[in-house]
Amino acid sequence: MIDDSLARKAQKQLYKAAREIKLDTNILKILENPMRTLKVSIPIKLDNGKIKVFTGFRCQYNNAKGPTKGGVRYHPDVSEDEVVALAAWMTWKCALLDLPYGGAKGGIICDPTKLSETELERLTRRYTTEIMPILGPHIDIPAPDVYTTSKTMAWIMDTFSMFKGYTEPSIVTGKPEILGGSKGRKEATGRGLAIITREFFKAQKKKLKGAKIAVQGFGNVGGHAALFLSQMGATVVAASDVSGCLVNPDGLDIPELMECVEKHACVIKHPGKQIDKEELLFQDVDILIPAALEDQIH
Amino acid sequence: MIDDSLARKAQKQLYKAAREIKLDTNILKILENPMRTLKVSIPIKLDNGKIKVFTGFRCQYNNAKGPTKGGVRYHPDVSEDEVVALAAWMTWKCALLDLPYGGAKGGIICDPTKLSETELERLTRRYTTEIMPILGPHIDIPAPDVYTTSKTMAWIMDTFSMFKGYTEPSIVTGKPEILGGSKGRKEATGRGLAIITREFFKAQKKKLKGAKIAVQGFGNVGGHAALFLSQMGATVVAASDVSGCLVNPDGLDIPELMECVEKHACVIKHPGKQIDKEELLFQDVDILIPAALEDQIH
Amino acid sequence: MIDDSLARKAQKQLYKAAREIKLDTNILKILENPMRTLKVSIPIKLDNGKIKVFTGFRCQYNNAKGPTKGGVRYHPDVSEDEVVALAAWMTWKCALLDLPYGGAKGGIICDPTKLSETELERLTRRYTTEIMPILGPHIDIPAPDVYTTSKTMAWIMDTFSMFKGYTEPSIVTGKPEILGGSKGRKEATGRGLAIITREFFKAQKKKLKGAKIAVQGFGNVGGHAALFLSQMGATVVAASDVSGCLVNPDGLDIPELMECVEKHACVIKHPGKQIDKEELLFQDVDILIPAALEDQIH
Amino acid sequence: MIDDSLARKAQKQLYKAAREIKLDTNILKILENPMRTLKVSIPIKLDNGKIKVFTGFRCQYNNAKGPTKGGVRYHPDVSEDEVVALAAWMTWKCALLDLPYGGAKGGIICDPTKLSETELERLTRRYTTEIMPILGPHIDIPAPDVYTTSKTMAWIMDTFSMFKGYTEPSIVTGKPEILGGSKGRKEATGRGLAIITREFFKAQKKKLKGAKIAVQGFGNVGGHAALFLSQMGATVVAASDVSGCLVNPDGLDIPELMECVEKHACVIKHPGKQIDKEELLFQDVDILIPAALEDQIH
Amino acid sequence: MIDDSLARKAQKQLYKAAREIKLDTNILKILENPMRTLKVSIPIKLDNGKIKVFTGFRCQYNNAKGPTKGGVRYHPDVSEDEVVALAAWMTWKCALLDLPYGGAKGGIICDPTKLSETELERLTRRYTTEIMPILGPHIDIPAPDVYTTSKTMAWIMDTFSMFKGYTEPSIVTGKPEILGGSKGRKEATGRGLAIITREFFKAQKKKLKGAKIAVQGFGNVGGHAALFLSQMGATVVAASDVSGCLVNPDGLDIPELMECVEKHACVIKHPGKQIDKEELLFQDVDILIPAALEDQIH
Amino acid sequence: MIDDSLARKAQKQLYKAAREIKLDTNILKILENPMRTLKVSIPIKLDNGKIKVFTGFRCQYNNAKGPTKGGVRYHPDVSEDEVVALAAWMTWKCALLDLPYGGAKGGIICDPTKLSETELERLTRRYTTEIMPILGPHIDIPAPDVYTTSKTMAWIMDTFSMFKGYTEPSIVTGKPEILGGSKGRKEATGRGLAIITREFFKAQKKKLKGAKIAVQGFGNVGGHAALFLSQMGATVVAASDVSGCLVNPDGLDIPELMECVEKHACVIKHPGKQIDKEELLFQDVDILIPAALEDQIH
Repeated sequence: MIDDSLARKAQKQLYKAAREIKLDTNILKILENPMRTLKVSIPIKLDNGKIKVFTGFRCQYNNAKGPTKGGVRYHPDVSEDEVVALAAWMTWKCALLDLPYGGAKGGIICDPTKLSETELERLTRRYTTEIMPILGPHIDIPAPDVYTTSKTMAWIMDTFSMFKGYTEPSIVTGKPEILGGSKGRKEATGRGLAIITREFFKAQKKKLKGAKIAVQGFGNVGGHAALFLSQMGATVVAASDVSGCLVNPDGLDIPELMECVEKHACVIKHPGKQIDKEELLFQDVDILIPAALEDQIH
Repeated sequence: MIDDSLARKAQKQLYKAAREIKLDTNILKILENPMRTLKVSIPIKLDNGKIKVFTGFRCQYNNAKGPTKGGVRYHPDVSEDEVVALAAWMTWKCALLDLPYGGAKGGIICDPTKLSETELERLTRRYTTEIMPILGPHIDIPAPDVYTTSKTMAWIMDTFSMFKGYTEPSIVTGKPEILGGSKGRKEATGRGLAIITREFFKAQKKKLKGAKIAVQGFGNVGGHAALFLSQMGATVVAASDVSGCLVNPDGLDIPELMECVEKHACVIKHPGKQIDKEELLFQDVDILIPAALEDQIH
Repeated sequence: MIDDSLARKAQKQLYKAAREIKLDTNILKILENPMRTLKVSIPIKLDNGKIKVFTGFRCQYNNAKGPTKGGVRYHPDVSEDEVVALAAWMTWKCALLDLPYGGAKGGIICDPTKLSETELERLTRRYTTEIMPILGPHIDIPAPDVYTTSKTMAWIMDTFSMFKGYTEPSIVTGKPEILGGSKGRKEATGRGLAIITREFFKAQKKKLKGAKIAVQGFGNVGGHAALFLSQMGATVVAASDVSGCLVNPDGLDIPELMECVEKHACVIKHPGKQIDKEELLFQDVDILIPAALEDQIH
Repeated sequence: MIDDSLARKAQKQLYKAAREIKLDTNILKILENPMRTLKVSIPIKLDNGKIKVFTGFRCQYNNAKGPTKGGVRYHPDVSEDEVVALAAWMTWKCALLDLPYGGAKGGIICDPTKLSETELERLTRRYTTEIMPILGPHIDIPAPDVYTTSKTMAWIMDTFSMFKGYTEPSIVTGKPEILGGSKGRKEATGRGLAIITREFFKAQKKKLKGAKIAVQGFGNVGGHAALFLSQMGATVVAASDVSGCLVNPDGLDIPELMECVEKHACVIKHPGKQIDKEELLFQDVDILIPAALEDQIH
Repeated sequence: MIDDSLARKAQKQLYKAAREIKLDTNILKILENPMRTLKVSIPIKLDNGKIKVFTGFRCQYNNAKGPTKGGVRYHPDVSEDEVVALAAWMTWKCALLDLPYGGAKGGIICDPTKLSETELERLTRRYTTEIMPILGPHIDIPAPDVYTTSKTMAWIMDTFSMFKGYTEPSIVTGKPEILGGSKGRKEATGRGLAIITREFFKAQKKKLKGAKIAVQGFGNVGGHAALFLSQMGATVVAASDVSGCLVNPDGLDIPELMECVEKHACVIKHPGKQIDKEELLFQDVDILIPAALEDQIH
Repeated sequence: MIDDSLARKAQKQLYKAAREIKLDTNILKILENPMRTLKVSIPIKLDNGKIKVFTGFRCQYNNAKGPTKGGVRYHPDVSEDEVVALAAWMTWKCALLDLPYGGAKGGIICDPTKLSETELERLTRRYTTEIMPILGPHIDIPAPDVYTTSKTMAWIMDTFSMFKGYTEPSIVTGKPEILGGSKGRKEATGRGLAIITREFFKAQKKKLKGAKIAVQGFGNVGGHAALFLSQMGATVVAASDVSGCLVNPDGLDIPELMECVEKHACVIKHPGKQIDKEELLFQDVDILIPAALEDQIH
């Protein structure tokens, strides 16, 4: 394991926590490595008739608490290192909340923006088939992550159900409501962020009303967090995504900005002052919400 | 993939063969990468009561011709790269002989000489359990390899059978005869080597009788090859193993040497002239038998 | 498909609804035909020792919403056409209420009034065995229908449970309460009818009290509907079954009539004025409840 | 059952045989109807992007002797009646030779000449998925029939194997040799015909040498029968297919005619005298080989 | 069946009840014998390296109400007779409360006080493996009993889960809370005893306050019953276990006594007057709680 | 275990053999007890409509060599002791011939001569269902034994096949030839006896021709042994069954006697001198064939 890898970072965090709680060395030895990682080749026929072979992963870090759970990511930067680290973090997250779940993570190395919807469907269905031996409502349950959506989950669910011979909604979370998905799932992460922020201010005996907020990654999570926080009275003064960064010291109009992003898929189509997106992390704010990719703050 | 890796070497061989036979590019794309590789953590309790976590692999390279087959290796140098390359080579081997099998390979990073028999048993049983989801007489069938024996196969077979609730001999090859193993299996690879050599001499219209032979790696394979070839009239002038190298221009006494290796597990306990073991590859012989680890000749 | 068949009728209703909601043609093409229909021979030994072979059906119309659900009918007029149409209607019913179920229907061509209870049991058990490959709590769940009762469901449940090796109550609905059946199931359809009627009157701003009602088919459904509606203040002026039709402009005594039907299995044993049963449909009433077989009104 | 249906014809043959052998009435009652017939909808996406829903069948007539076996036919005239009759005949055929198999038959109503190869593949794969619950090496084993080939069997085998998670060659017969198909399978039916004819002549104490033969349906079966019979010395004087009929009183050159059919898929591209194809049945010959569709002679 | 056996005793109770409720003879015949009893050999390696073979049982008395449920007992006196009787009583208990469960019981003939924890673990895991064919959340669900604890249940659950390939908490009750066990399970039986006693006094219109209680078997059940009853105002004047019997006419200090038992595993380490433990049954009390082994009162 | 029980006898034989071959004590400990014994209640409806509950057993003594094999016996004297002993002996028999099978035995306590064929069928089917969890071609394979025949095996095979959903001939041996039974199976045991006797005479350098033979139990085994031995030239001077004993110093006419037994099911209907059946064991003969029940010679 390379020392600056993400998985190594996750391991070091574990060691620190283990020292803190004087964790039994034998248990630590089991926790410091993933239970299993499956690497698969995913050959699909492209729309142009040629075959292209993608590489996918599914890491199940630890299942002591129950079936593993975790997202599936489609991104050119997906790597075994990344899925292992993310699966470890999913494990700690579930355990901290005492959920009856272990942690997992999957991903496919691909640029989803360059694949047609039919290609994405074939990619997803074949990936599901390949990881089938270690998938199941009692074994491992995928969820949406970067560049995968409720539609991706519907494909996974359908592929799994075809194999079983009956409809099995409990094989994924984050599926469309019509297929049994939970209401409010889309905005859940953002709402959680907003509620935690509110509670943190309460605990700090500070006022949320008027507090200044910067949001890095104004996507589904960042956007909803901004929305709920602005409804609670906070002022969102900066919002960035891959396209750039918008700032407004008096507060951005969040509902309008969300509409713009819905339509154009980038914040900078919204009128207003722009700054370099790297600058967002250095704004003078009360709260910084890092809602882009992991590992942004050093 | 690092350019001097074994898997890369296997890939380059494939490309060369593909050019030769004008293989369809789409098929080449599927063949150039392994179908799936499972990496598992294997926690076992050592005899001293402490837990140690080993890392194991099972690569199933391609199953188009039938269930995959391939050895399981216990060695400190086992790596994902190595099992992938060996699994590829198993695939080509089975396909060339038109056997209804695909290729696979597995391994555990460990020093088996430092583990007690009970530790090796626990290691093997847990490894079997961990790769169980992709194991089966119709799916993937392990075999002995470096530092694994018919006893190892008996453990795998017993673990698999326990899980199924009935005795399943067809889950491994290379098991003890008493459990349904094939007769002659132990000497099969060496005998094959001897027969091929004999046929090669015939085709070359040369005489095998009196031909000089050097054997690198006087273990199960090398020893039996030497035995059968000497019975056919050839003269084994050099034999090495990890302990060193014996030479005798008039021919070593192979049955005696085998007995010595049986007893002492090294060739140099046998009386006779010794040379540096690296020198074996440079002896003046008609046939060189490389029967140690792969990748010895450059 | 013959143009005046029931299945064709169901198809035409679908086309009409599809036009109304501008349903995607591709989806319509999938919905216009049943997913699968299994036709089975059911040989049973009669009480007289001879073998008789019955013909049974199970149509699973569509399972997009979840496992299919639907009754099993024992009647001489059962046909593939009928089960297909009824399965289609079950599909729409479940979908309209957004239940996580698809629609199915089954039936056996037989005259259940001419079979002894032991013959009915053997018939039911063998039918269950024959449709087993497409039955299951996640696949398809039978329910009582014309001439099948909670006892029939108990036989299906027991046959299925025997095959699985454990008691599986979720394979049928409408089973006896003692085996896990729902309380109030028997009167549920009739109660539903009464409640809808009450709500309809409310919506129409009419009074249910004193409204005149005719019930075609005073069986489990019609009888309970009559009972609940009379308790709500309506007046049941006519009630028919296969035996004939009773009328009373001042209202029939429903509890007494139900008792009579319980005992004699026909309405005409109850004292009161009788008319020809075909006349029931032409009575001057505020509400007509058609609770006999489908397809009565033209 | 309509009186002139194929299934009715098969039934009448059964009754006749039953009278002959004084078959137990109870057994006759079980044999006179198919065990089960599954009718499925098969929605596939056409190459033009539209969905088309085909209807398919699989009839398993009787499995008392072992797993059922029988072809899958792709033809516009496929009907439930036809598959039931053909499945019955498969049952008698297997039983007469005391093979450990029962009889089955399947089919899809379609015009395979109007479907592209990718459409045929999707059709076959979806059909296989739909009949999966009653398919298996121990349950029912498909084979090629009218307009289905070893390639079709390869698709069925691959679909089944994908679902099981391992390669299962024993799910179909008539698959390509490379996938485990039997050698000589292609010419087997024709060779059988030729051998039976030869034996028949022997039994009749007639000479096959110079005997005149007419072949209706010069396809795989008819063509090979003609080839083997001409090699045995017989003279093939007439050969027809859907395109027309060739005649030559001195004997057609069968190897050349086979080559022509291989290239042009019709006999009339071969030089020589042609007659109306209906006339073939009325030629003055010693042997008539009806190798087109069933039910040609009245 | 020997006339003074426990199973015979259970049978006689059944006959008495059957007469009382005029039970159908056919049903009685089914109820008077256990459905199935599995007797297994359990070979384990002791810590000293030798193999010892224990004998274990699992009796599933009747599963008409649902999956069977019942404890697993480790004791030198375990016998087939005992598990059959206890399984019968579990059946009546579940049925009386109309729980959807049948009754079962298991046990191993062993002296658990003479086995190390690792030996107990191996014994439990092997016993679980041996009864696996008739175990499952839908089939039979073990629970703790004499000398088995939540830890034993964790071993059973882990063994079962290993075999299934996923964590299955519903295979046992009485497991540790961390693995999904119910809160309050430990004190449940004792609390139930206390509540029933309180209700009995109410029904008898007597005062529980000041009532005198003797507890035979001051273990988990007896101790908690004593605790809750003393909190309700009763006076525990005598408490015995295998070590002896403590008495105090003014009431024992139950929390202190429980602490003592927790530490020393016997009541007599607690200061106070002791009597012979057999005397406990003859104390002058209002309530006697027999919470040791069954069959104490004659 | 009672000291004069059959199982104890089998154990003592094992101890003797173990001393002889200096068997490892750990292995002996595993071999001295049966792996598992299942005792089941078998409720069936008698022809008179009443329910009767029978008790059945299946003991699987040891499966180290492969799936267990052994007969099923219907007899009033069947007991757990007997099936355990017989299963032990089956284990040694299979092991001595190095067959890949372990040993098992089953039985039902019943008087098969007092049950109608339909009752026997129901008894067999229910017994099969009850032992299903430990039955299977890879697990345990029944065979005919005392009072069970090829028809009994057909019932077991059909019941098992119904549960699996396909015909599984490999679940029993000794089935009718029409269902896949082996040719020559019926006379196999008798033929084996005759051949061994012939070889024994050869080894003893004695003449079989004219040797005098007494057969205890002139059933399927004894009758065929007598037949083959008489064909080899021996003289059968005495033959008994449950009905009595026939003697003829010049040799009984075996084919005629077999015909008589076929027709009347007893030897004494055959003309000739009769003696008390207990006397058979004391005849002056060269060979005594004990082919009745086990444990006849003391």
